Amino acid sequence: MVPSSRDDGPSVVVVSAHAADFVWRAGGAIARCAEDGAPVTVLCLTYGERGESAALWRSPDATLESVKTIRAEESAAAAQTLGADIMFFDAGDYPLRATDDLVDGIVAQLRRLQPTVLLTHAERDPYNLDHALTHEIVLRCRMIAQAAGLPDRNTPPLGASQVMAFEPHQPEQCGFVPNRFLDISPVIERKRAAMKCMDAAQGHLIDYYEDLAVRRGVQAVRNGAPRTVTHAEAFQMVFPTVGSTLW
Amino acid sequence: MVPSSRDDGPSVVVVSAHAADFVWRAGGAIARCAEDGAPVTVLCLTYGERGESAALWRSPDATLESVKTIRAEESAAAAQTLGADIMFFDAGDYPLRATDDLVDGIVAQLRRLQPTVLLTHAERDPYNLDHALTHEIVLRCRMIAQAAGLPDRNTPPLGASQVMAFEPHQPEQCGFVPNRFLDISPVIERKRAAMKCMDAAQGHLIDYYEDLAVRRGVQAVRNGAPRTVTHAEAFQMVFPTVGSTLW
Amino acid sequence: MVPSSRDDGPSVVVVSAHAADFVWRAGGAIARCAEDGAPVTVLCLTYGERGESAALWRSPDATLESVKTIRAEESAAAAQTLGADIMFFDAGDYPLRATDDLVDGIVAQLRRLQPTVLLTHAERDPYNLDHALTHEIVLRCRMIAQAAGLPDRNTPPLGASQVMAFEPHQPEQCGFVPNRFLDISPVIERKRAAMKCMDAAQGHLIDYYEDLAVRRGVQAVRNGAPRTVTHAEAFQMVFPTVGSTLW
Amino acid sequence: MVPSSRDDGPSVVVVSAHAADFVWRAGGAIARCAEDGAPVTVLCLTYGERGESAALWRSPDATLESVKTIRAEESAAAAQTLGADIMFFDAGDYPLRATDDLVDGIVAQLRRLQPTVLLTHAERDPYNLDHALTHEIVLRCRMIAQAAGLPDRNTPPLGASQVMAFEPHQPEQCGFVPNRFLDISPVIERKRAAMKCMDAAQGHLIDYYEDLAVRRGVQAVRNGAPRTVTHAEAFQMVFPTVGSTLW
Amino acid sequence: MVPSSRDDGPSVVVVSAHAADFVWRAGGAIARCAEDGAPVTVLCLTYGERGESAALWRSPDATLESVKTIRAEESAAAAQTLGADIMFFDAGDYPLRATDDLVDGIVAQLRRLQPTVLLTHAERDPYNLDHALTHEIVLRCRMIAQAAGLPDRNTPPLGASQVMAFEPHQPEQCGFVPNRFLDISPVIERKRAAMKCMDAAQGHLIDYYEDLAVRRGVQAVRNGAPRTVTHAEAFQMVFPTVGSTLW
Amino acid sequence: MVPSSRDDGPSVVVVSAHAADFVWRAGGAIARCAEDGAPVTVLCLTYGERGESAALWRSPDATLESVKTIRAEESAAAAQTLGADIMFFDAGDYPLRATDDLVDGIVAQLRRLQPTVLLTHAERDPYNLDHALTHEIVLRCRMIAQAAGLPDRNTPPLGASQVMAFEPHQPEQCGFVPNRFLDISPVIERKRAAMKCMDAAQGHLIDYYEDLAVRRGVQAVRNGAPRTVTHAEAFQMVFPTVGSTLW
Repeated sequence: MVPSSRDDGPSVVVVSAHAADFVWRAGGAIARCAEDGAPVTVLCLTYGERGESAALWRSPDATLESVKTIRAEESAAAAQTLGADIMFFDAGDYPLRATDDLVDGIVAQLRRLQPTVLLTHAERDPYNLDHALTHEIVLRCRMIAQAAGLPDRNTPPLGASQVMAFEPHQPEQCGFVPNRFLDISPVIERKRAAMKCMDAAQGHLIDYYEDLAVRRGVQAVRNGAPRTVTHAEAFQMVFPTVGSTLW
Repeated sequence: MVPSSRDDGPSVVVVSAHAADFVWRAGGAIARCAEDGAPVTVLCLTYGERGESAALWRSPDATLESVKTIRAEESAAAAQTLGADIMFFDAGDYPLRATDDLVDGIVAQLRRLQPTVLLTHAERDPYNLDHALTHEIVLRCRMIAQAAGLPDRNTPPLGASQVMAFEPHQPEQCGFVPNRFLDISPVIERKRAAMKCMDAAQGHLIDYYEDLAVRRGVQAVRNGAPRTVTHAEAFQMVFPTVGSTLW
Repeated sequence: MVPSSRDDGPSVVVVSAHAADFVWRAGGAIARCAEDGAPVTVLCLTYGERGESAALWRSPDATLESVKTIRAEESAAAAQTLGADIMFFDAGDYPLRATDDLVDGIVAQLRRLQPTVLLTHAERDPYNLDHALTHEIVLRCRMIAQAAGLPDRNTPPLGASQVMAFEPHQPEQCGFVPNRFLDISPVIERKRAAMKCMDAAQGHLIDYYEDLAVRRGVQAVRNGAPRTVTHAEAFQMVFPTVGSTLW
Repeated sequence: MVPSSRDDGPSVVVVSAHAADFVWRAGGAIARCAEDGAPVTVLCLTYGERGESAALWRSPDATLESVKTIRAEESAAAAQTLGADIMFFDAGDYPLRATDDLVDGIVAQLRRLQPTVLLTHAERDPYNLDHALTHEIVLRCRMIAQAAGLPDRNTPPLGASQVMAFEPHQPEQCGFVPNRFLDISPVIERKRAAMKCMDAAQGHLIDYYEDLAVRRGVQAVRNGAPRTVTHAEAFQMVFPTVGSTLW
Repeated sequence: MVPSSRDDGPSVVVVSAHAADFVWRAGGAIARCAEDGAPVTVLCLTYGERGESAALWRSPDATLESVKTIRAEESAAAAQTLGADIMFFDAGDYPLRATDDLVDGIVAQLRRLQPTVLLTHAERDPYNLDHALTHEIVLRCRMIAQAAGLPDRNTPPLGASQVMAFEPHQPEQCGFVPNRFLDISPVIERKRAAMKCMDAAQGHLIDYYEDLAVRRGVQAVRNGAPRTVTHAEAFQMVFPTVGSTLW
Repeated sequence: MVPSSRDDGPSVVVVSAHAADFVWRAGGAIARCAEDGAPVTVLCLTYGERGESAALWRSPDATLESVKTIRAEESAAAAQTLGADIMFFDAGDYPLRATDDLVDGIVAQLRRLQPTVLLTHAERDPYNLDHALTHEIVLRCRMIAQAAGLPDRNTPPLGASQVMAFEPHQPEQCGFVPNRFLDISPVIERKRAAMKCMDAAQGHLIDYYEDLAVRRGVQAVRNGAPRTVTHAEAFQMVFPTVGSTLW
């Protein structure tokens, strides 16, 4: 039973704290949805310009603007490769702040896009509070977007979008317990291509996340997927699902 | 993505500690599955003869055998009403014991029936340790049934059946957190009829569980079900689901 | 052992995120305390004007002010029916913000009223972050009100008020585990009357919360209440209780 | 609202895994209840003869019987000092086993004594599985004793006795979170006297538990007890309480 | 394996919400580290002037400035006694606020001091939200200090400092579960001397924390420390440790 | 501070439910300890003959005895490769049972070997109850082995051995949260060689566990290990550590 927030089929919004997060952690899901015809939009809250661009800062000429520009180009290319739209909020990282402007901007997009599913970071990440705050921002914006009495009367209230957390770097330390494995075998090439769009200095991460997809694929099979599933991504749904069958 | 343990479609096994548990807690799911063509078999571990037949024991002529007989008849009638097969293990209640005979008997049925989904009690119930033990027995039997080296070489190993806990009487005290609401609106009449098969003295429970289904129905709508959903049952899946879509 | 923060008997402060929350979730407790002679004051942080007044916004003439006015009247009538005082802070909902003004205002009331018990929302509510923030605000204000060095030297520091969370709409999803059932059978008529003060479009909620009170009443009996208890409300105490007996 | 399982006022049963546990961990509660006129019976499952009698085993002449005899005398003296009856089950320690005989014996006592409150060990203790098993045995026996269909028709079913865990040696490692502090200031002398009945070699524990009582007393005051409370014991109630007031 | 963030050996930064917290809760650890040659710096976020100076406010002449002055002198003396440097941020207590200035100031110190270990409050404290916020501030500042792209290019990014929570006043209510006991027997005299520097009116706390150190010492022995350990402090490490041995 | 249960340095006992578990999950730790001169003994409770030898059962000639023989040879070879002693208890798998014989046998070894550290399965594993039971058996046997009054007076009581859980196949579903990463880079070749001793049909697992070691190595570096750490194993310590430093 797909929550029926759009008459014209499901759609997805991905809220990514930093420019590259959505690629490593949910690139397969994005590609899979896009291939299935579900529109995907990435809301990129920051460029990860201060905290997640160490390689770029090794250049003596690096400035905040130059770093942002490079990260934006990489992310845009990756999003295009995955088949998704992307919007940048340039809210500033390390630390991200939940300003009124940021919240209002996200709410406006949620009302416009009416996503069936919101993909974002896990609730907790002691290594990276930008990630945890992004989770909270998503829940807050979802709630606001559902309100009947917003000043903007031209967009309808958001429905009961599911929120799914994608996998943090150290899942156990973040209290991340997957309850949904998505088969990304058919789109693994596309995810690889998107990962290759990212900063050359993060190249080692491509192997790391390829290995992770294999690992999650093995676990998917252990949980009932057919043996043809070779790669998977793990997600934790925040809200109960509803359905007309048990499976 | 339905776990493919049977070539001929999904099936369900319900493991019920006492004779009436499956009716109150999962009657809607059983009826729904049965109507959808998925075979459902109830494994009734005890008749609830000592602990859940207070009304029958008010009769001065009651004996253990007479109570068991009545409870068996009621349960069989309820199962038939719901469209399910039922088997009684007569393992003795208050307390239930996980004897080798009981475990072997359940394992044999799991190998024979190859269920897609196992419905049973929640992991924890401080009010009723028979319920918690039944959950543990189900996990244990699932594991044994998956073994390649059982003496019985005529049945194939069980696949990765999902285990879903149905709702305990006091869910919060049992750590029960639903992650799946099943729409039982189309079969609520059938569930009512099954509830009416139970001991007359438990008649007040019919209203109680009808109200609960309405309550869970309201919550299902809050989580994205269409407003046509008026009644639901709540379940907690033990294992992650696998799929080829996010929804 | 009633915490002795007031020489003249116990008193209660209810902190409600939105205009109607205190009625549905704690109306019985308020009425019961009031009938027992304990003064009850409701601090209503917002009117729920944006997020919890959908029916009113269906009118084409609705404005933020008109919605607030109607909600204020309803809440005031409900509070009066329950026997409580009510104060409105008009802090703005969806999202609520923990401004200095709001915090200072609540602290001033806590110092003035010296409540034995603070009733408020549960710590966690992924559906409604205004509720979770209200819980945090209550703990924060309780702490501040206990400080010896506040600028206001005319009111004494607050004592060790108990904080009790009332029941959220989807308790399991909010980590709500009741540890206190309050018998509201003697005041159920008064709670019904207060619920009827609320927006006509929320009329269906009256049945919903009446059913919930019956459900909690059944559970209260299961936990040792006499069978005369027909309706109850559930609460989760945040702090340990102290006593001179075990019961 | 005292659960009304006895017409003639509340009573207490303490289930102690080893001979001395009830003294260190609940001696104040026992004395307090006894002084208030509530009958207290200690069910001592083992003498702690193998695992908690290290000092006695230093004697070269020690035998299992001699150790048991000494521990029984000490415990009987301590119980008498506290004002409680005591029964020994001699079930064997390190490890304790939940035999049918033991369970049946406890059930018979619960039916006979109809306790309002059951005091016992915490649910979890990775250092001492006898303690955790005792908690489970208590929940199991409580359930069985509530059954209408037991062979023994001469005793009535047990009501909804509260179960309260007393404090383990390393509370945080055992997941013990106190939700009830009992003022034992009026009976601290009696608890001291009972502790002195125990094996001389455990004398250092007297200071340890005296200090603990002071510590819990300070915390009781922090949670609202009057400053006259100097000593307390901490308990964790397993089931919700029911009441006709919030306090 | 000591995390190698400094070539010249380990160092410690203590982040204390109020002026006295670091003395009671981590004075032994500070003295022990200092005696072992590891530089320790205390970052004192507030003087505890409003909320934790009740004795000083009893004086009719007390002003915010006079209270701050006294608390600063006491804390400075205690830090000196323990062998630590101390810095005051005067950020204002009850409530503490995570202003940009405060965060930037702490980040600058972390970059300058490159601590191996950060000692601070536990993640949760329902009695005192300043404590919980300090924990969050420490995690946030740690993350920011690790960023390559901060405006300050003169200090290197912080490494993977361990964060260790010291013991809250009511540990179980704060979810505090110690996973490290530090032997402070060799420095207990120094901790006593530091405690004596604090406000005379808090003198009773000296006994309280001395008793606590004995209690934690007993537990350390239970967890494998030699019997010569008489006093200990308890800590909860936030991050996994790394090592080249299992012990 | 190494717990001083042996005068002659630390030693390790590994308790493995099935014949291969200790290789995949703790092979690096075993090799590392052995190379460092700490004696390691593997207690292999079963051969995994029924449940974890699927490849062998594909042979039409397979019998329980033939499967056990092969598994024993593989495990013995792997243990030898890692530098450990191994003992087989042949207790029967799927399901494992905690018989008195098994418990007594393990207790005797713990008394004889006096391990500093016990390595075993995690507390919880809903996929494999043999694993969870093994954890419980280890805690139970540790407790019994500490008793002063065992019939065997020739071996001294066990000290406060640390218990460390090694990594389950699906860590998040088992509540496994690593708090110790062990650098196994120097012994990865030896672990590979041991893995190759296992059943050819499990060859795919060699890559899987090699990848896992890389993944845990990356995480170890994130938690402060030097960049020379390329492979690691993850463990969860059950008891607090004790020490004379913070690191």
